[in-house]
Amino acid sequence: MPFTPQEVEAHLINLEGWEMEEERWIVRKYVFSNFMKGIAFVDEVAAISEAFNHHPFITIDHKTVTLRLTSWEAGGITAVDIKEAQQYNEAFEKARSE
Amino acid sequence: MPFTPQEVEAHLINLEGWEMEEERWIVRKYVFSNFMKGIAFVDEVAAISEAFNHHPFITIDHKTVTLRLTSWEAGGITAVDIKEAQQYNEAFEKARSE
Repeated sequence: MPFTPQEVEAHLINLEGWEMEEERWIVRKYVFSNFMKGIAFVDEVAAISEAFNHHPFITIDHKTVTLRLTSWEAGGITAVDIKEAQQYNEAFEKARSE
Repeated sequence: MPFTPQEVEAHLINLEGWEMEEERWIVRKYVFSNFMKGIAFVDEVAAISEAFNHHPFITIDHKTVTLRLTSWEAGGITAVDIKEAQQYNEAFEKARSE
């Protein structure tokens, strides 16, 4: 069972930058100081998503990387999406502090 | 001056898989046997686009990587887009043969 929209919103309070989209996705845009820093972040995102075996939809628009997560098989947002989004935020904070 | 739609179509004849979109972009989808192969290709694409200092709009949807090119400053497709698309195709052929 996916989370209800209210449950998703409750989780997003602790998840900086992430928003719900069409009650089916959670989405966050990450902005970098240059294109290659965004690409390095995408490499981190790829490694994390392989570990989860759960891959976000990724767009790269110059210095902006957007990640969208959903659990297709559940028909909405589940705990995996929330946990994975948390790890992406941690990877972003780490990249930003380097 | 950007190419006319007719000029773009003439160039695309020699550019496998690329199509015109809204007379403003050229676009190609590249499909890989797994997610990480697509990510490795995106790393190649990033290096090529840095060399051109001209970055495509990239989407990664599991095993499918989509590239969109346009020359914003010219208001359409120019020779740079065509040349860059050719290099992406070469990188893809190389990745596929490895």
